[in-house]
Amino acid sequence: MPHINVDENLPGIRSLMAFSPETATPMGELANLLLRTSDTLSMADRELIATHVSYLNDCFYCQQSHGAIAVCYLGGNTELVEQVKKDYAHAEISDKLKALLAIAASVQKGGKFVTNEQVETAKSLGATDKDIHDTVLIAAAFCMFNRYVDGLASNTPTDLSSYPLRAQQIAEKGYGNHIFSNKQPVPDNQEV
Amino acid sequence: MPHINVDENLPGIRSLMAFSPETATPMGELANLLLRTSDTLSMADRELIATHVSYLNDCFYCQQSHGAIAVCYLGGNTELVEQVKKDYAHAEISDKLKALLAIAASVQKGGKFVTNEQVETAKSLGATDKDIHDTVLIAAAFCMFNRYVDGLASNTPTDLSSYPLRAQQIAEKGYGNHIFSNKQPVPDNQEV
Repeated sequence: MPHINVDENLPGIRSLMAFSPETATPMGELANLLLRTSDTLSMADRELIATHVSYLNDCFYCQQSHGAIAVCYLGGNTELVEQVKKDYAHAEISDKLKALLAIAASVQKGGKFVTNEQVETAKSLGATDKDIHDTVLIAAAFCMFNRYVDGLASNTPTDLSSYPLRAQQIAEKGYGNHIFSNKQPVPDNQEV
Repeated sequence: MPHINVDENLPGIRSLMAFSPETATPMGELANLLLRTSDTLSMADRELIATHVSYLNDCFYCQQSHGAIAVCYLGGNTELVEQVKKDYAHAEISDKLKALLAIAASVQKGGKFVTNEQVETAKSLGATDKDIHDTVLIAAAFCMFNRYVDGLASNTPTDLSSYPLRAQQIAEKGYGNHIFSNKQPVPDNQEV
């Protein structure tokens, strides 16, 4: 049961953002800037970093939500996302992304856990300064989002079938005010 | 030495925000909404929560910066800010603020460390749902800011005399784009 009086029809961070729409706006903007940008780090890479950090923080809602979005970008490859969460070193991803995930995992413990060696390894594998900046900030931001969701004990749907539909909506439209809506998105193949 | 190529004339988070002004904008807005609001939690209370969490995260730059801002709001009471950082239970602050600092300290460990008992104690001492929401989000946001600053090994001035002047500027004007400026603020008693 949530620690404060929020709309029980809304899950996870969406119930908190509806409680506090003022703070929701910059948080949604930050999520869009970090996760909906595709340059030398793809949107799939960015969601995998967010999902791995949420897994390390044991935030069920965020790891399911962002894992489902990563699955959308990866053509339905649920197994890959599960492996990145639990054992990215043996996942079929680039060595550069593995090096960035190592940095993200250090950030999850605390900023000072990031080592010069981790950064040099990532750079030697092609990571740009922006890749490293964005990796650190995505990991740091999810240390905020995860604590926000669990620190207020927001409702977490345990029915895993509820996540992919919402994920598809975010994969198509990004993070915006529509994520506060308590309406279920309508699948493409269903008449309104 | 910072892990990425940032302006060495700028300290801490300001160098990172100048490197990435797009993400700086929502982060500055979030800081303003959480720290520059005064309702049933004063701006001093909010900065004390931010400072205590930064202390727990061992982020020198953030605990000095926000501690100095709290000192501004508290009429120069440096001793009180130092005690809240290190031993708030024995500081001369309200029992309600002590209860909120206990929640913030749990959030620093992880969202799930916040207990129903901590929340009930805070409510019994007069904390509103918004107080609890804002406390959790301030603590969570500083788990982001602290990791951003230290995860990229940004420059940290060790000369403690550099913090109060900048703090005075933020206490007067809030968190905004001027914090990216590499110009030192001019004291009121000094001609331009």
